[in-house]
Amino acid sequence: MAKRRKLLLRRPKHTKTVNQVPGTMTYVGHKESSETKLEVIDYNADQYERYTSNSPDDAFNYVDEKSVTWFNIDGLNNISEIEKLGDYYELHPLVMEDIVNTGQRPKIEEYQDYLFIVAKMLYHKDGEIENEHISMIVGKNYVITFQESDGDVFDPIRERLETSKGRIRGKGADYLMFALLDAIIDNYFLVIDDMSDRIELLEESLFTNRPSDDIVYEIQDLKRNILRIRRAVFPLREVISRLEKLENEIIDPHTGNYIRDLYDHIIQISENIEIYREMIWGLMDMYMTTISNKMNEVMKVLTIMASIFIPLTFIAGIYGMNFEYIPELQWKYSYFVLWGVMIIIFLLMLYYFKRKKWL
Amino acid sequence: MAKRRKLLLRRPKHTKTVNQVPGTMTYVGHKESSETKLEVIDYNADQYERYTSNSPDDAFNYVDEKSVTWFNIDGLNNISEIEKLGDYYELHPLVMEDIVNTGQRPKIEEYQDYLFIVAKMLYHKDGEIENEHISMIVGKNYVITFQESDGDVFDPIRERLETSKGRIRGKGADYLMFALLDAIIDNYFLVIDDMSDRIELLEESLFTNRPSDDIVYEIQDLKRNILRIRRAVFPLREVISRLEKLENEIIDPHTGNYIRDLYDHIIQISENIEIYREMIWGLMDMYMTTISNKMNEVMKVLTIMASIFIPLTFIAGIYGMNFEYIPELQWKYSYFVLWGVMIIIFLLMLYYFKRKKWL
Amino acid sequence: MAKRRKLLLRRPKHTKTVNQVPGTMTYVGHKESSETKLEVIDYNADQYERYTSNSPDDAFNYVDEKSVTWFNIDGLNNISEIEKLGDYYELHPLVMEDIVNTGQRPKIEEYQDYLFIVAKMLYHKDGEIENEHISMIVGKNYVITFQESDGDVFDPIRERLETSKGRIRGKGADYLMFALLDAIIDNYFLVIDDMSDRIELLEESLFTNRPSDDIVYEIQDLKRNILRIRRAVFPLREVISRLEKLENEIIDPHTGNYIRDLYDHIIQISENIEIYREMIWGLMDMYMTTISNKMNEVMKVLTIMASIFIPLTFIAGIYGMNFEYIPELQWKYSYFVLWGVMIIIFLLMLYYFKRKKWL
Amino acid sequence: MAKRRKLLLRRPKHTKTVNQVPGTMTYVGHKESSETKLEVIDYNADQYERYTSNSPDDAFNYVDEKSVTWFNIDGLNNISEIEKLGDYYELHPLVMEDIVNTGQRPKIEEYQDYLFIVAKMLYHKDGEIENEHISMIVGKNYVITFQESDGDVFDPIRERLETSKGRIRGKGADYLMFALLDAIIDNYFLVIDDMSDRIELLEESLFTNRPSDDIVYEIQDLKRNILRIRRAVFPLREVISRLEKLENEIIDPHTGNYIRDLYDHIIQISENIEIYREMIWGLMDMYMTTISNKMNEVMKVLTIMASIFIPLTFIAGIYGMNFEYIPELQWKYSYFVLWGVMIIIFLLMLYYFKRKKWL
Amino acid sequence: MAKRRKLLLRRPKHTKTVNQVPGTMTYVGHKESSETKLEVIDYNADQYERYTSNSPDDAFNYVDEKSVTWFNIDGLNNISEIEKLGDYYELHPLVMEDIVNTGQRPKIEEYQDYLFIVAKMLYHKDGEIENEHISMIVGKNYVITFQESDGDVFDPIRERLETSKGRIRGKGADYLMFALLDAIIDNYFLVIDDMSDRIELLEESLFTNRPSDDIVYEIQDLKRNILRIRRAVFPLREVISRLEKLENEIIDPHTGNYIRDLYDHIIQISENIEIYREMIWGLMDMYMTTISNKMNEVMKVLTIMASIFIPLTFIAGIYGMNFEYIPELQWKYSYFVLWGVMIIIFLLMLYYFKRKKWL
Repeated sequence: MAKRRKLLLRRPKHTKTVNQVPGTMTYVGHKESSETKLEVIDYNADQYERYTSNSPDDAFNYVDEKSVTWFNIDGLNNISEIEKLGDYYELHPLVMEDIVNTGQRPKIEEYQDYLFIVAKMLYHKDGEIENEHISMIVGKNYVITFQESDGDVFDPIRERLETSKGRIRGKGADYLMFALLDAIIDNYFLVIDDMSDRIELLEESLFTNRPSDDIVYEIQDLKRNILRIRRAVFPLREVISRLEKLENEIIDPHTGNYIRDLYDHIIQISENIEIYREMIWGLMDMYMTTISNKMNEVMKVLTIMASIFIPLTFIAGIYGMNFEYIPELQWKYSYFVLWGVMIIIFLLMLYYFKRKKWL
Repeated sequence: MAKRRKLLLRRPKHTKTVNQVPGTMTYVGHKESSETKLEVIDYNADQYERYTSNSPDDAFNYVDEKSVTWFNIDGLNNISEIEKLGDYYELHPLVMEDIVNTGQRPKIEEYQDYLFIVAKMLYHKDGEIENEHISMIVGKNYVITFQESDGDVFDPIRERLETSKGRIRGKGADYLMFALLDAIIDNYFLVIDDMSDRIELLEESLFTNRPSDDIVYEIQDLKRNILRIRRAVFPLREVISRLEKLENEIIDPHTGNYIRDLYDHIIQISENIEIYREMIWGLMDMYMTTISNKMNEVMKVLTIMASIFIPLTFIAGIYGMNFEYIPELQWKYSYFVLWGVMIIIFLLMLYYFKRKKWL
Repeated sequence: MAKRRKLLLRRPKHTKTVNQVPGTMTYVGHKESSETKLEVIDYNADQYERYTSNSPDDAFNYVDEKSVTWFNIDGLNNISEIEKLGDYYELHPLVMEDIVNTGQRPKIEEYQDYLFIVAKMLYHKDGEIENEHISMIVGKNYVITFQESDGDVFDPIRERLETSKGRIRGKGADYLMFALLDAIIDNYFLVIDDMSDRIELLEESLFTNRPSDDIVYEIQDLKRNILRIRRAVFPLREVISRLEKLENEIIDPHTGNYIRDLYDHIIQISENIEIYREMIWGLMDMYMTTISNKMNEVMKVLTIMASIFIPLTFIAGIYGMNFEYIPELQWKYSYFVLWGVMIIIFLLMLYYFKRKKWL
Repeated sequence: MAKRRKLLLRRPKHTKTVNQVPGTMTYVGHKESSETKLEVIDYNADQYERYTSNSPDDAFNYVDEKSVTWFNIDGLNNISEIEKLGDYYELHPLVMEDIVNTGQRPKIEEYQDYLFIVAKMLYHKDGEIENEHISMIVGKNYVITFQESDGDVFDPIRERLETSKGRIRGKGADYLMFALLDAIIDNYFLVIDDMSDRIELLEESLFTNRPSDDIVYEIQDLKRNILRIRRAVFPLREVISRLEKLENEIIDPHTGNYIRDLYDHIIQISENIEIYREMIWGLMDMYMTTISNKMNEVMKVLTIMASIFIPLTFIAGIYGMNFEYIPELQWKYSYFVLWGVMIIIFLLMLYYFKRKKWL
Repeated sequence: MAKRRKLLLRRPKHTKTVNQVPGTMTYVGHKESSETKLEVIDYNADQYERYTSNSPDDAFNYVDEKSVTWFNIDGLNNISEIEKLGDYYELHPLVMEDIVNTGQRPKIEEYQDYLFIVAKMLYHKDGEIENEHISMIVGKNYVITFQESDGDVFDPIRERLETSKGRIRGKGADYLMFALLDAIIDNYFLVIDDMSDRIELLEESLFTNRPSDDIVYEIQDLKRNILRIRRAVFPLREVISRLEKLENEIIDPHTGNYIRDLYDHIIQISENIEIYREMIWGLMDMYMTTISNKMNEVMKVLTIMASIFIPLTFIAGIYGMNFEYIPELQWKYSYFVLWGVMIIIFLLMLYYFKRKKWL
């Protein structure tokens, strides 16, 4: 069961740096990776090269017309290095700001020479859904990706590039963009599946465990998580939808089918989210009802015990009185007759509760 | 009443194969039919031929301009055989992927030479709603259908083709497509009717049975089922709607009226789903209220018993005290007077509860 | 109060004949009128003729350019007779199917020579809302109406035609269509008013009656009824809206104002339905709250009785003990002092509960 | 607090006269003013004349091109007089019907020579929201208003006309229409403010008063009232919105800004309505929760009293037994030791409940 | 915890001055600043001048083509001074009315020579969300802002203007407008964060504190606050969206990117508001459930105590009876046997409750 600590809203404090000059780059995320890591993968159908560095300066040599170059930057807190890249590709100051502003929601923006895409990577970590800010610059023959920390969702793509698996090596930067978005969205399926597992577990525990506030905590936590997932997925759906309709020379018309496929997947995820949402919202009612059921059980036990023994105790009390003239007291069989009467009352009561289906 | 096992979410584990190369065919369904069965029905107004095989190779002989050929493939786990068909008709790799990806939601896609339609077949099996993935390739003079296992919803169509009942033999592949979709949608009516029966039964049991968590289980299960049906029906509604508006040489304009009819039916089903949904969501409230009613009853019994006998017991206790000087104890008629007083108190109490409508 | 029987969902079993050949006429309604009755009213500004028959054969004589002919068919289970009419006017097979398919929702379809309109007539019968399927074929100079049984909502129109009241005799078939739809919609007002009466009654009984499951039944029944009314009214609203926008030579432009009026009425009904719906959905909460209020009352009585007498009984118990050395027992005024103490405790308790506003 | 009488739905019985000939004028409102009062105000920038009459006949003299004439009719049950006006201005029969049909919802209709606007005037009367039907005919140089009874919302406009305050005298009939609608909508602010007062009062009484069904009554009454206000305001919003977009020679382009201002106001009212609606719907939950809180308090008192004294009474009962051999009975300090034991049990219990935060 | 006073709706009494002549300026806000303060900042890339005055008269000297002039008016109750400004710039009377009408919702209006924007400034003050009316006139080379009182959200902009930080000095009046709106929207983030803190705190206290009506108060207060924030933010979203699409010579095309950024921010705030709203609405359910959990605990204690001791007390009562012939009384070991029997009953009860998981 989720620990209490989970309850904390954990909203990123200062989700946006208030009152800064617009276009100023300020990293507001959690992850303070000590250094910004730059990885360059340069490829075409015939060749593949990979290069890692801490500075973009010498990476620019890889950029040319004949190959696709993928720059991947891990860690957003080394702003000066990121600015160098921005200057080289003449990125708009607001784009630079959004790259490091982890509070920015998923969006797509069309600039003169490039597309700017913001997305969110979701993954489970210690039962928590972590949210990582990813931005992507897609140009004619290059892709730049910015991540908060070194994640591994892109590893299968690196492998496909290296081993030349599938069509990826023979295609352009737009196909790489598709592959990267596909990797991000594929990952949502895992998060969603995990969500479903937690709902399942919680439903089980609603019925088997004794009522406790922990379950309320857990339900509230699930609510919060589903809302957070939604916030990452729904705007991305719009992004993909706009990407599908985009008429831009960066996107090859043949990539259209793949983007439509992407759209299918994100719609599927959205539908699952909505279903899980309805299930989670229903859980509180379910829980409330099981509590009431249990309370009903408790009350019945009390009522049955009290209803049977209170009258009997009263009868016993009667013959415990010290009046001098109580005729029954002297009669020899009184005690035994009384026991009989009491047993009859007891049985009648049982019968009554039985008929009421309380037993 | 539904068994507890039902509660499990039974989400298809790995609803999508995460991180595979896009366009890769991977079967993710439940049904592991040992072999893929291919059935070919070739017909026109004058002739009818039916042929069953385990391999599509020799089936291609049937394809020509003068007749409609319907390929029906049962079982999706024999991927190589399906690929042969795909190669013959030059299907797009993403289409091939969606044919075997049972997690794919209903959709329609227009390609150069064919329409690609994905739908879901619903049927009841052991009180469970089973969901079967169906895809359809509709070309100028052929239809290919892919099913997870050999279902029988298409049997009436086979019969109509064989006995030349109705207009079907005289019409083209588009009418066959309509007939197949009609068969699928007709089947939804049965599932919906079954849903309504379960709601009815549950409503009955809410009032007659003693409160139990099983009912909560059952309501939750109904919720889940209606959400699942919705997920199959609502996207199909969009498919039919797009089919109606489609301007494509594969669809004969005269088939338009029939598709409009199809649309009518699926709207009718959607409306029923929404009504049942509202009824099911209301069930939890109803149940909660009946529990409260029952608890109220229990509390009244307890309160009446306790309110009557506790004061009487107190009076008996008074005269059970061992003080040396209690004047009443010596008086001869005390005991009888006391009985009188007690009976009066008892009657007053009864009257009070009667007036409060608790009895 | 509604009887329990009401609870049954009464969904029309086999709302659609599953797996039949599309375009096949199959009557699926409840009402098995022994014979199909045909009534023909032929009129223009100068003349009026009315004719009743069991067969449409000789009715066709009335059809000519100079007068409007209204065919009214009561009873839909005599399919062969209906087919004759369909053949005469060359109706589409799917239209024929929808005329007898009582599950068909309200709709309008534009054909070459005629409009096809499906609507639902609602009326109250033994506290139940009955739903009757009505279809209408509107041609240049004729209207054909099909009803499940002989209803009387059209009687005022027959009278206006006979007595030449209002403008109706001087206008064409389109105005007759308007008048018929107006009669159907006017009838909804009565059903809606009846709904409001039932809600009012139920609200009263929530407060005055003791809580009982019958009220839950009744609320659930109201819910079901309002959902059913909605299902008849809302699609008809779309029908009227489309009728208003229709550009078709059958509809005279001057009739437009009347159809706009019709639309106003159906919007008004829809708004009422939504308001009643919100009221009904609120009833369950109200009921739940009154139950809780009542339970609260019950608990207070129990708590007050128990809290007062349990301590007093304890005190009496103390002095009922048989210890040899209890100093108080010998003292002469113990008994009276004890009574005093008990009365003081009793009064303090009363004061406490008074201050807590429990009394 | 609202009296019980309030609960009655007070729907206007026969909100529409069912089965009448369309275009027939039938007054269905509540207010039976004995006579229809006609007031004529004729003005332009230079002159102002006011005239009151019981018949429109001699009022027509005022109508000319050089001045704006405002006819105001109070009382709708004198149909023949209204018909005269209708004949003079050649109003459509359906317009005439809607003028006296108080069930008609707000709407705007464009006719050849005039605009027809229906609105609702809301005002508070004895804590009830009364709903008055207002219709307006706006022509090139005249405005006709029809009210159910003589209301005073238009008095400020009369005064502005008389004293030539603001721009009104210098403007045309369209500006008068704006001023009248502005007066109606301004009045909604008062009704809305009153609503807010009632919600505030009710919230207060939820916490301070003891739970009672009266509060449930009041909440239900508030719900009904807010729904009624909504029904008057929301369609008027559409009316104003259409008025803004209208291209019609009756409306001077310069009046556009004023109508936009009107639209602003009605949007503001709509937003308030929605907020109050959410607050009212929340009240029932709030109330339910306060009841539960109170019940919890009651149960705690009972549990504490019972848990403390029932065991003590049991102990006293033990030593009240009449066994011949109970060793403790003879021992001299038994009684005092027992008291000690009982006091210790009592204190332990108190400590237990304290730690559970029940005290 | 929020004090009770908070509960008062605090709606601005007379949110609009009813029945005034349209276009009349009447200040209806709370804040009665004794005087209207005018501040003029005149700047271009090269120069910067700041001037404060109580009257706009001499301020007009600053207005020329070569520099941007920002007039900031604090305090809206000195209407005559505001009118002077309005006359100078020939503002529409309805604009003048909206500037001082603090009830006016956020909107944008395009006039011949200027844009008129209304927005709301939100800030926290003593745990309350205060709402300040701000209007903005944006012309070709000037911006006029009207505030209710001297707020400090614009201070950072003043500083940036003075120190020439960022791009602001080199840009036109449209960029100043963007900067001012950005400052307002940035401030919403703070208010939203504060909201989230309050929700967090409340959730904590739901579980740890004993149930009390104060929590219900607080939840209701949160609801009200979120609704109020929504009312400020949602119309502003539309304003920004319209501003983005605006084609107007006042807005430089290069400012478009910045406005898009603004739109991003306000969407982000809206999403947060919706999430917090769902969380707050869920709180009442959570609270209800925790109360029920607590009640369940209380009932269990009562039931266990009563179920154990009531039967034991009955047994003790039996042997307290004064019958002459009760055989057990004479038997020497009766007392000890009885104790044994009682202990066994006690242990059986404990075992029963243990198995029911009540202990």
